[in-house]
Amino acid sequence: MKFKPPIIAINYKIYPQAFGESAVKIAKSAEKVARETGVTVIVAPPLTEIYRVSREVEIPVFAQHIDPIKLGAGTGYTPPEAVKEAGAVGTIINHSEHQLKATDIFKAVNMAKNAGLYTLVCADEPEIGAAVAVFKPTMIAVEPPELIGTGIPVSKAKPEVVTRSVELIKSVNKDVIVLTGAGISSGEDVEAAIRLGTAGVLVASAVMKAKDPYKIIYDMAIKGLKALEKQA
Amino acid sequence: MKFKPPIIAINYKIYPQAFGESAVKIAKSAEKVARETGVTVIVAPPLTEIYRVSREVEIPVFAQHIDPIKLGAGTGYTPPEAVKEAGAVGTIINHSEHQLKATDIFKAVNMAKNAGLYTLVCADEPEIGAAVAVFKPTMIAVEPPELIGTGIPVSKAKPEVVTRSVELIKSVNKDVIVLTGAGISSGEDVEAAIRLGTAGVLVASAVMKAKDPYKIIYDMAIKGLKALEKQA
Amino acid sequence: MKFKPPIIAINYKIYPQAFGESAVKIAKSAEKVARETGVTVIVAPPLTEIYRVSREVEIPVFAQHIDPIKLGAGTGYTPPEAVKEAGAVGTIINHSEHQLKATDIFKAVNMAKNAGLYTLVCADEPEIGAAVAVFKPTMIAVEPPELIGTGIPVSKAKPEVVTRSVELIKSVNKDVIVLTGAGISSGEDVEAAIRLGTAGVLVASAVMKAKDPYKIIYDMAIKGLKALEKQA
Amino acid sequence: MKFKPPIIAINYKIYPQAFGESAVKIAKSAEKVARETGVTVIVAPPLTEIYRVSREVEIPVFAQHIDPIKLGAGTGYTPPEAVKEAGAVGTIINHSEHQLKATDIFKAVNMAKNAGLYTLVCADEPEIGAAVAVFKPTMIAVEPPELIGTGIPVSKAKPEVVTRSVELIKSVNKDVIVLTGAGISSGEDVEAAIRLGTAGVLVASAVMKAKDPYKIIYDMAIKGLKALEKQA
Repeated sequence: MKFKPPIIAINYKIYPQAFGESAVKIAKSAEKVARETGVTVIVAPPLTEIYRVSREVEIPVFAQHIDPIKLGAGTGYTPPEAVKEAGAVGTIINHSEHQLKATDIFKAVNMAKNAGLYTLVCADEPEIGAAVAVFKPTMIAVEPPELIGTGIPVSKAKPEVVTRSVELIKSVNKDVIVLTGAGISSGEDVEAAIRLGTAGVLVASAVMKAKDPYKIIYDMAIKGLKALEKQA
Repeated sequence: MKFKPPIIAINYKIYPQAFGESAVKIAKSAEKVARETGVTVIVAPPLTEIYRVSREVEIPVFAQHIDPIKLGAGTGYTPPEAVKEAGAVGTIINHSEHQLKATDIFKAVNMAKNAGLYTLVCADEPEIGAAVAVFKPTMIAVEPPELIGTGIPVSKAKPEVVTRSVELIKSVNKDVIVLTGAGISSGEDVEAAIRLGTAGVLVASAVMKAKDPYKIIYDMAIKGLKALEKQA
Repeated sequence: MKFKPPIIAINYKIYPQAFGESAVKIAKSAEKVARETGVTVIVAPPLTEIYRVSREVEIPVFAQHIDPIKLGAGTGYTPPEAVKEAGAVGTIINHSEHQLKATDIFKAVNMAKNAGLYTLVCADEPEIGAAVAVFKPTMIAVEPPELIGTGIPVSKAKPEVVTRSVELIKSVNKDVIVLTGAGISSGEDVEAAIRLGTAGVLVASAVMKAKDPYKIIYDMAIKGLKALEKQA
Repeated sequence: MKFKPPIIAINYKIYPQAFGESAVKIAKSAEKVARETGVTVIVAPPLTEIYRVSREVEIPVFAQHIDPIKLGAGTGYTPPEAVKEAGAVGTIINHSEHQLKATDIFKAVNMAKNAGLYTLVCADEPEIGAAVAVFKPTMIAVEPPELIGTGIPVSKAKPEVVTRSVELIKSVNKDVIVLTGAGISSGEDVEAAIRLGTAGVLVASAVMKAKDPYKIIYDMAIKGLKALEKQA
């Protein structure tokens, strides 16, 4: 699998729309956009919905979290093998709503790799992004938590956070794919994110709460492509 | 739904056998025993397997854990509604491998009830059992953690823990169903557990690692029934 | 030592006034009130200030927290023996700002007792109060967290929480001393708390941020005594 | 203050010898060695002992842990200002027995600096060392947790961990002082640690449990100096 920019990763979180038929419907909209535009669209449903969603779509399904724990006695925890078996091809790690100890991020990245999963590590500060870049995940998303869920896009409110993240992360590890997130609500925000040097975005509420998720994902994809073309 | 004794609750934990086809096969064995004997058999697969397993059997499927969190922004967490939507009818709370703050046990029990789930709260000491009895869960399982996974049954090694648990818990809340666990490996252990005053057992490794799960669950069911008959 | 009502327990928290000379000065004010009125006044300075404060006053000094950990390898943790050695005679456990797992509350109460410390367990709900009453601490303080630091006294805003706490706790353990807290700001609030059936209060910001801590503690003591007399 | 190599940092942990008169005595032994040899000796007593110890010696006293929390409502927590007020000039952060979320290590380092404290961040893997190097602490100590408290020195058992740590950390941040630890028991081990490229060691049980702490600290200091001279 290749994660070719522009990348739109949709974190379902645990919004009411993240479950059951609605979970599948949003994934199918994402898949439709991916097919129509060639853009990389990733969906990350809740742990309990990975199996259902991954049966229905062919775009990459990520878990929202894994626990860096071995198979065996670990009641209620979710090792990388669990999400892989349910159909995920990757996992978010250290989302700002589910942060881990530094050493557990490292373990989770390694255990995910060993289980054959791609990794998307979140960072709430540019420096955290640079720190986790040492662990060589597939992707890093820098998201200032104070903007998450606000609809105020990081690319507008704090463009310097985005450019500084890219710079700091690349100075430690030039191969990692850098995303940004927090408040990303429209195609325009995706465009800005790419102009600031990232490969794409991590979005949540804007898609999950949308009346028409297809429409907003499509808009993000098209504007993302446009921004990339301008760079070329 | 009624949880008529004897009760055999099977915690899959995250043993290698807890996932995929194996998860379904063990659930079907459990269902077969339930049908043949009339005994209450509960299965608690990993979070990611609830959907798959609950599609395949009609016995009660429980989650191993829920997070006392509201629907919305809670990346990677599992609210009661999530496991309900995936097909669970109940949930384990506060297993000794996944313990919660006192106040979160209370919240989890209440939120599970509001979501229409039965609750099985674990306690690692008789006094913890009595404390959580205040919260009025459906069931309480007392499991001394030092015996979990050892094959040394609590009913033999520490019978006084079992009788003391029943007594303490009933003094606080006479309506709650009391189970015991830790090291329960055979029908004989179930018999002993019921003789000591509980309504059944919480088991894990003995079933999950068995060559023939059906055989051991069946043995537990038959001996559980026998012990109950003697009491009558 | 006897904890005769009315009891005023002052949680210093980590307010700027909780350290150094200010910590000692507030403790001396508390001691002065205790001497003048005969009321039980307890001070709970930060961990790093226990030694300094306990050298200077003869009223009971409590820790704000202990970790249920054994002496040995536990970098940065604070076992009961540590606060005892520094001069504390008791400890708060499970404050709503520092909550513990149910099983750790039980362990902390037992380890504190073994180290010769009195215990004051906090509860953020009446049911949590009843649950921890099973563990037989010296005192239980019920504090609805939504009122903490607001200056809106629980005894006025939620008198039913106070009466229900007393009732529920006493039904489980009639020997434990029940306090209440959250928003207690004046002598009047202490009076109300005692009228509602508690033995006293747990206070923080009202004393710590007062221009004249002596004056407010004195007012609380006098009104507490008055309320008790009316009951006799 | 300068932290000139060789550096011997003594983590008291919460060994029985870490409290009261014993805490002071060990600090005085450390101070004596520092005076006699010119070696940098740091002592890190438990939180409750910082005040007592810092009154008695002039060598640097570090806290074992700080919480990245602001002054105010934080019952039982220890902000950087608390340990500073008690007499510490620095603090350990993220010891393998007290690990923090990645983002909290960053916050703790920054808050400690703002409070005028030096920082010694621990790492349980070379990669964690490199990651925290991004945060620009004063010192980083890499300690493989499986060797801590064993008496098997990391410098003998896993010399490649030490050299790899130095290399990785310096590639991210060439200014940070690198220490190593785990199993360091003798002057010889300190010598080896310095030969492998570190500026010194973090020790605990070998000193704390020694019959004659002065003797072992002195031996470590002398051998550390010797190793440095050879390098020159």
